[in-house]
Amino acid sequence: MEKEKIAIIENDQFAKLVGLELVKVEQGYAEVRMEIKEKHLNGVGIVQGGAIFTLADFAFAAAANAGRTVTVGINANITYSKPAKGKTLLAKASETSASRSLCNYTVDIYDEDHDVLVAKFNATGFIKN
Amino acid sequence: MEKEKIAIIENDQFAKLVGLELVKVEQGYAEVRMEIKEKHLNGVGIVQGGAIFTLADFAFAAAANAGRTVTVGINANITYSKPAKGKTLLAKASETSASRSLCNYTVDIYDEDHDVLVAKFNATGFIKN
Amino acid sequence: MEKEKIAIIENDQFAKLVGLELVKVEQGYAEVRMEIKEKHLNGVGIVQGGAIFTLADFAFAAAANAGRTVTVGINANITYSKPAKGKTLLAKASETSASRSLCNYTVDIYDEDHDVLVAKFNATGFIKN
Amino acid sequence: MEKEKIAIIENDQFAKLVGLELVKVEQGYAEVRMEIKEKHLNGVGIVQGGAIFTLADFAFAAAANAGRTVTVGINANITYSKPAKGKTLLAKASETSASRSLCNYTVDIYDEDHDVLVAKFNATGFIKN
Repeated sequence: MEKEKIAIIENDQFAKLVGLELVKVEQGYAEVRMEIKEKHLNGVGIVQGGAIFTLADFAFAAAANAGRTVTVGINANITYSKPAKGKTLLAKASETSASRSLCNYTVDIYDEDHDVLVAKFNATGFIKN
Repeated sequence: MEKEKIAIIENDQFAKLVGLELVKVEQGYAEVRMEIKEKHLNGVGIVQGGAIFTLADFAFAAAANAGRTVTVGINANITYSKPAKGKTLLAKASETSASRSLCNYTVDIYDEDHDVLVAKFNATGFIKN
Repeated sequence: MEKEKIAIIENDQFAKLVGLELVKVEQGYAEVRMEIKEKHLNGVGIVQGGAIFTLADFAFAAAANAGRTVTVGINANITYSKPAKGKTLLAKASETSASRSLCNYTVDIYDEDHDVLVAKFNATGFIKN
Repeated sequence: MEKEKIAIIENDQFAKLVGLELVKVEQGYAEVRMEIKEKHLNGVGIVQGGAIFTLADFAFAAAANAGRTVTVGINANITYSKPAKGKTLLAKASETSASRSLCNYTVDIYDEDHDVLVAKFNATGFIKN
């Protein structure tokens, strides 16, 4: 990847705050890991939906911006399936389709210790030309 | 509201990390404010989608859990309309429908300084009986 | 509206099959009515989700294509709140935001006889320039 | 499958109107085919979004109601990737997760003649106990 692209991903302050680690990235695919800590929990003691969304969204942004002109998310949806019980979440983002101006991604978020699907996320990006 | 309910909202560690302030809450309605800081920005210098989602989701959770048995989010979607240019975001969550087991919410997120709609969020909650 | 635009809306064969009546249309707003008939019902005797979606989607398409270059839907979501008990459904589509290439719509679908919200629909359109 | 379950699927009047053919169904999985005809087209001559949604939704309903107590869709989203150019659409619905009261499905809709992904659909169902 070009340097500028890496900067877009690495300069994400909110991803740093949340504690996201970019594990793998190539055009159209990315994996991001989040070690679950006290700070990620909601009032009933499970990982907050916003933390899971942020993890998935960052994996999408990394994959969509790898080797391409800037892509911005225009909308996204998330469905939660099981609460995470392990210590690590892993998000895997894959491009499912793309045209000149738009791209679509699916992100699966796993409880890495138990290999359980925690949530599914879909997003559409607008490719700035 | 009963004490236990307030605890669910106030003990949210992730909301504290992100810096969310519960401004108003009653059954079926809530407002949450977020002062935009460096930590909320993504790699291109605008508020990260995950931060906006977290703000909206917390407003939904507060409104849905006010004066009712525990409600958990089962899915949500967000559509971004304009980047925030001001210093504060305000999310307003309203219940649009509810049955015995399910409730639906719409959350509008505004750039409070410019009175501009930044994003729209919809979520469905499962009411634990 | 220009003639060509009216044609796009009036030549919709699927809308004819389903029995949709365009009640009102102007740039960014439309109302479409559907008289509920036997053909719209699913296997448990209520209006099929696909019929409600089609009604909402057509209202969105009419509003988004009124007085503008061709707009195509890129994604949409629908949340069902109550089964329709009356004889007519009315969908009201409103634009919530728009930029040069994208527009966002919310469509509320009512049981017109009982003034009850049956479903909420959101869609994003791509404006072809 | 029990007879009553088959009835729920086979008595769907709207599926008949649209011309949907249930190709395969078992608990958690279904395939539905739609031969593209004039009646499915919108005003610009491509398959109407509502027809594609209805195809996907019926595949979801068939899979979710096969061998289980009645399941009703509570919300759904669809993302369009490419216009269909062939003569047949095939929808494949798979359950991605389920709990006691809720189930989640992903449906991929293909242009069968060109093996191209036309749309992706996700839905959440409520399992009536």
